[in-house]
Amino acid sequence: MRLQHATWPEVEAYLQRATGIIVPIGSTEQHGPNGLVGTDAICPEAIAWALGERHGVLVGPTQAIGMAQHHLAFPGSLTLRPSTLIAVLRDTIVSLARHGFTHVFFLNGHGGNIATVNAAFAEVQAERSLEGRSGELELALFNWFAGRRGRELAESLYGDAEGSHATASEVSLSWFARPEAVKQVPMSPRVAPTGSAQCDADEFRRRFPDGRMGSDPSLASVEHGARFLEAGVEDAWEAYRAFIGQP
Amino acid sequence: MRLQHATWPEVEAYLQRATGIIVPIGSTEQHGPNGLVGTDAICPEAIAWALGERHGVLVGPTQAIGMAQHHLAFPGSLTLRPSTLIAVLRDTIVSLARHGFTHVFFLNGHGGNIATVNAAFAEVQAERSLEGRSGELELALFNWFAGRRGRELAESLYGDAEGSHATASEVSLSWFARPEAVKQVPMSPRVAPTGSAQCDADEFRRRFPDGRMGSDPSLASVEHGARFLEAGVEDAWEAYRAFIGQP
Amino acid sequence: MRLQHATWPEVEAYLQRATGIIVPIGSTEQHGPNGLVGTDAICPEAIAWALGERHGVLVGPTQAIGMAQHHLAFPGSLTLRPSTLIAVLRDTIVSLARHGFTHVFFLNGHGGNIATVNAAFAEVQAERSLEGRSGELELALFNWFAGRRGRELAESLYGDAEGSHATASEVSLSWFARPEAVKQVPMSPRVAPTGSAQCDADEFRRRFPDGRMGSDPSLASVEHGARFLEAGVEDAWEAYRAFIGQP
Amino acid sequence: MRLQHATWPEVEAYLQRATGIIVPIGSTEQHGPNGLVGTDAICPEAIAWALGERHGVLVGPTQAIGMAQHHLAFPGSLTLRPSTLIAVLRDTIVSLARHGFTHVFFLNGHGGNIATVNAAFAEVQAERSLEGRSGELELALFNWFAGRRGRELAESLYGDAEGSHATASEVSLSWFARPEAVKQVPMSPRVAPTGSAQCDADEFRRRFPDGRMGSDPSLASVEHGARFLEAGVEDAWEAYRAFIGQP
Amino acid sequence: MRLQHATWPEVEAYLQRATGIIVPIGSTEQHGPNGLVGTDAICPEAIAWALGERHGVLVGPTQAIGMAQHHLAFPGSLTLRPSTLIAVLRDTIVSLARHGFTHVFFLNGHGGNIATVNAAFAEVQAERSLEGRSGELELALFNWFAGRRGRELAESLYGDAEGSHATASEVSLSWFARPEAVKQVPMSPRVAPTGSAQCDADEFRRRFPDGRMGSDPSLASVEHGARFLEAGVEDAWEAYRAFIGQP
Amino acid sequence: MRLQHATWPEVEAYLQRATGIIVPIGSTEQHGPNGLVGTDAICPEAIAWALGERHGVLVGPTQAIGMAQHHLAFPGSLTLRPSTLIAVLRDTIVSLARHGFTHVFFLNGHGGNIATVNAAFAEVQAERSLEGRSGELELALFNWFAGRRGRELAESLYGDAEGSHATASEVSLSWFARPEAVKQVPMSPRVAPTGSAQCDADEFRRRFPDGRMGSDPSLASVEHGARFLEAGVEDAWEAYRAFIGQP
Repeated sequence: MRLQHATWPEVEAYLQRATGIIVPIGSTEQHGPNGLVGTDAICPEAIAWALGERHGVLVGPTQAIGMAQHHLAFPGSLTLRPSTLIAVLRDTIVSLARHGFTHVFFLNGHGGNIATVNAAFAEVQAERSLEGRSGELELALFNWFAGRRGRELAESLYGDAEGSHATASEVSLSWFARPEAVKQVPMSPRVAPTGSAQCDADEFRRRFPDGRMGSDPSLASVEHGARFLEAGVEDAWEAYRAFIGQP
Repeated sequence: MRLQHATWPEVEAYLQRATGIIVPIGSTEQHGPNGLVGTDAICPEAIAWALGERHGVLVGPTQAIGMAQHHLAFPGSLTLRPSTLIAVLRDTIVSLARHGFTHVFFLNGHGGNIATVNAAFAEVQAERSLEGRSGELELALFNWFAGRRGRELAESLYGDAEGSHATASEVSLSWFARPEAVKQVPMSPRVAPTGSAQCDADEFRRRFPDGRMGSDPSLASVEHGARFLEAGVEDAWEAYRAFIGQP
Repeated sequence: MRLQHATWPEVEAYLQRATGIIVPIGSTEQHGPNGLVGTDAICPEAIAWALGERHGVLVGPTQAIGMAQHHLAFPGSLTLRPSTLIAVLRDTIVSLARHGFTHVFFLNGHGGNIATVNAAFAEVQAERSLEGRSGELELALFNWFAGRRGRELAESLYGDAEGSHATASEVSLSWFARPEAVKQVPMSPRVAPTGSAQCDADEFRRRFPDGRMGSDPSLASVEHGARFLEAGVEDAWEAYRAFIGQP
Repeated sequence: MRLQHATWPEVEAYLQRATGIIVPIGSTEQHGPNGLVGTDAICPEAIAWALGERHGVLVGPTQAIGMAQHHLAFPGSLTLRPSTLIAVLRDTIVSLARHGFTHVFFLNGHGGNIATVNAAFAEVQAERSLEGRSGELELALFNWFAGRRGRELAESLYGDAEGSHATASEVSLSWFARPEAVKQVPMSPRVAPTGSAQCDADEFRRRFPDGRMGSDPSLASVEHGARFLEAGVEDAWEAYRAFIGQP
Repeated sequence: MRLQHATWPEVEAYLQRATGIIVPIGSTEQHGPNGLVGTDAICPEAIAWALGERHGVLVGPTQAIGMAQHHLAFPGSLTLRPSTLIAVLRDTIVSLARHGFTHVFFLNGHGGNIATVNAAFAEVQAERSLEGRSGELELALFNWFAGRRGRELAESLYGDAEGSHATASEVSLSWFARPEAVKQVPMSPRVAPTGSAQCDADEFRRRFPDGRMGSDPSLASVEHGARFLEAGVEDAWEAYRAFIGQP
Repeated sequence: MRLQHATWPEVEAYLQRATGIIVPIGSTEQHGPNGLVGTDAICPEAIAWALGERHGVLVGPTQAIGMAQHHLAFPGSLTLRPSTLIAVLRDTIVSLARHGFTHVFFLNGHGGNIATVNAAFAEVQAERSLEGRSGELELALFNWFAGRRGRELAESLYGDAEGSHATASEVSLSWFARPEAVKQVPMSPRVAPTGSAQCDADEFRRRFPDGRMGSDPSLASVEHGARFLEAGVEDAWEAYRAFIGQP
């Protein structure tokens, strides 16, 4: 069940039987020579929509822009400052809490968001703790790319060529979700250099000239993407059930 | 051409021939008994994607959550505070400007966003004017629902029953874009009360008990939606060309 | 009754019989060769003070600086960033609400303020809606220059030479309010160029070299100003009574 | 010379011969049984306008609302949060600096503003110091009520009954500037209690039930006000000349 | 009793008998050729710790970084913007208030903090006054360097060579607190120039080339520092008792 | 070499030979029945000071208050909101960068700070990336409690009774650093419950009634603390050298 496709009476009915929601969050940033700028949003969104269809959980609108300052030297990358993203997440969560949602589960596709999302959770809870407000509010972040099944699949398919940005697994999943956007682009070198992304945009581009980090996404395929979707759905569903305390 | 489906080298190539971009912006809010929570994002997104396909203009990711505080008494509505939305738009625009985009055209689906989007434009320009920074940067807001052709079509199809929120026209367009989400719901009264939305959420719900403002969206249809898409595409394309100074 | 000239016991007594207040808001910005930098504040202030005298409504202090970033390339123009102006209006409104004012009517003299003032209203209401606070609070913006009577008078006196910035009508009204500051300055060209003000300060000055937009304020006169005051007072009083629900 | 009454070419001409400006800043807050809500803005404004007329120095628009949170339990008092007032002053100063003003002299009427105005000066300078920006920018705060001549006059006229809020001297000066607003109100007790204003609004009203602090403003008169104006003009002009380095 | 060295049950027990706390606040900034960068934090901290030991009052953690933008042209100086420092103090105070502390006494070592600390107090109280929250909360700032006994001691030891920054008294006290960091450095000129620190960092360094303002800290000694500690402890304890209403 | 104990000429000389600095960051929060409120600041500070003494690296002032909102239900705990802590770290880093520091290494003692510190790093870099500013600036976070040697020592000494908050290892280290503050307090139960700290303050106290998470800090000792200091110094030095690219 997608919030965007529901009416408010349908949401009201949903809240009678459940108070959890899944919110996909990604980024709009370069993903190397053959990866889509929207990869990090498309992947968790695809998994979240599948969860919504298969399990009836409500899925909120995708936060398409994340914290991607280090990618700004590549055309098309967009970023929110961490302080902006914190404000966005705070307003989103407080809006949901007003309706009675008690468990908000962010399904994330971008490593660069992790710190800021967790800081946003703390910002929301700090306002409550400082003002002495009560009431259940549980917040969780789940990174689809770090799920056990997905990790194992990537290891079996790509080994070390999976990499850490513009990975073969995320390119596969985004292609499965958007087959019209598959690109065949030669990679040189085959496997990109590795290193740290803790730097500004110009330095990032110096370190990673074509945008990839340690990956060979020429190994990606739509067929692999179908398998990553299944792995991601199982990983995320397991995490979500644990989060809402459902066996 | 959708930014989300492009690679960074494709964006780099685009910037060689054009420096304009269209960014859909909507809202996540109740749209009455049969309208989708995502209506205001789905409509401009559908028009923008059609523009991207037909005319090759680059289309950025949809800003799905807008300024919808007055709808918060209906389950499922989300809002950003104006100050948060200003920060989001500022970061988005500054990111685009860094890449060399000179014309950013926001294609909007929600009346409640208008003031804040214009304030955000002024915020961006004020920073530049106060700091004495130079360089071309043009910002425009186009409300698809206010285009001439769309207005005329709504008038001819619905007359006064078009209304001003959860309108028959926007419900039609959103259904055309998402036919799987069409809902048949009886309306009572047939045409909703009219009034001002300049109030807080509780007061809004008192004024407009089922969320509609002056509309009868039971008149909506997928077939109408197809016609609103065409009208919207023509209206928006005309406005965009004028904006970028292209005859 | 001007708040600035009242004692607190007088305000307390006023609140026993009325809970509405009028707050003039303007701008401090260039108004062409013969227009005063304070025009946009002087005009609504003059109308508001007349309303206060004639009808006993309380009039708050004038917000003299507004959102005028596009005028910064002309000496003497001051601007608040939209985010700053939002904070100012929020604090002003919340202060008034604490005392029991339920209807705050901003009487505005500057088109560039409109978006930000409306965003500020939404900011105030969003805080209330998100935090679930209740209590009547109605906010209105009235642009004196857009009132029907004033528009008709300007049309009859100046036709197209009224223009849209440094207009003949506002120069007239400001001169009536401040006859000691009347300036006779030749205009060249007689009628200034037209165009959009949606840009930064340097671009604005390129488009409008002497600061006027489409106007010929050499047509202005103190005598005209007296008539604009009357028109403005009637327009604003009508709007205010509608706002507070008084027949 | 008042900025509000000047044209931009007049400001441009002024900047050829001087780069200093005086900006009155006050507060909108209760001033006891017979003092005006606008007292703290009216007093420095009157002095500043006299300086402008007599000495040709440019006088900016009065900042009528200041930091007056402790007065909020008395109807009519308005406050800006310190963070808001800092933003207002920052934008004002940066606007002025863009035009080439190098010396901004705030002529203040409210003790409660002092800390925040000085913090605002530091905020502006901190941005410059952190970003390594250069260029002369001098900022000064002058409290008219603390000038030597004014202090001596108050001592000679009222002795201890001058007090520290709703003082006889400021009531006199405001009445001289606004003779139409003189009020004759009995005081009980004749001299108000003394104490600290470092507290919230409810506590302030408990400490100072009618709003006065240590004063007997029934001693005030328009004739005294005329003398306070002269004293204030001399005190402020001396301070201003020292500030701009003029003998 | 130092908060840093207490357990939470010990703090809980303390709150049964007292609700006041002392928080040292300083700065991290150059203090001339022989003064320590940490002087302004070390001095009030030393006094506060002595108060904690001798009188059992709880002492919070030292705020080591303050508002020192004007010192940034000297290596090692750090500053918080006033807006940042206000946020820090607000969060600190609100945290303490949540536990039941009613009297928070900041023991300050840096003149440049005074305005911002007072603005922070007003920010905290303004939030309470605007939102109508109640409950006792008293906030005080005490500058150890302005205490009567300390002033008299400095006058007797150094006369005019005490100065106003990198003073002989504060260097003495910091050396007493940190004897391992005593430096013997020749001064030239013996007594530094005087002037105003109301400027940006580059201008400050032009005015005060070695960082001292009007002082000759070569007169400082550890032995003097011991006497300043005693004077400071007596001055501060007297002020603290007055603050909490204890005879 | 401690910044607090250095003069500015000494810092200037340091910058000739090195451009890295270590900044301890902790928290002020409850640490169970026998742990000190200052534990999280005392531990990294002790390690950092030892590094400064042994290896000559400059050590900045300790940031004593961190993000500890979840501990606010225990008396004595203080928190900064994440947005406040981000501002503090931004100002600190930008101050250091102005002096020419290129490598800032935060030595952290509190798990709850990790997300916010990383978000702060991204905030600083985002400002640079969005504004196109250049120049080397490397930022690192090292958690002393996660170092390999320290982990192994805790495992060997305490096994599972080490826990995750108010751990035996950090209590030991803080006692070694502050032997005067050692407390002998019986624990009940011996080993505290485990669980997640992702919640607000009231919920945290419900989950962890005496403040410990999974630990038995009655196992702590000063002698153990000496060993944790050695392990921590080696772990941190290794990390710091890798960070600054020194073999």
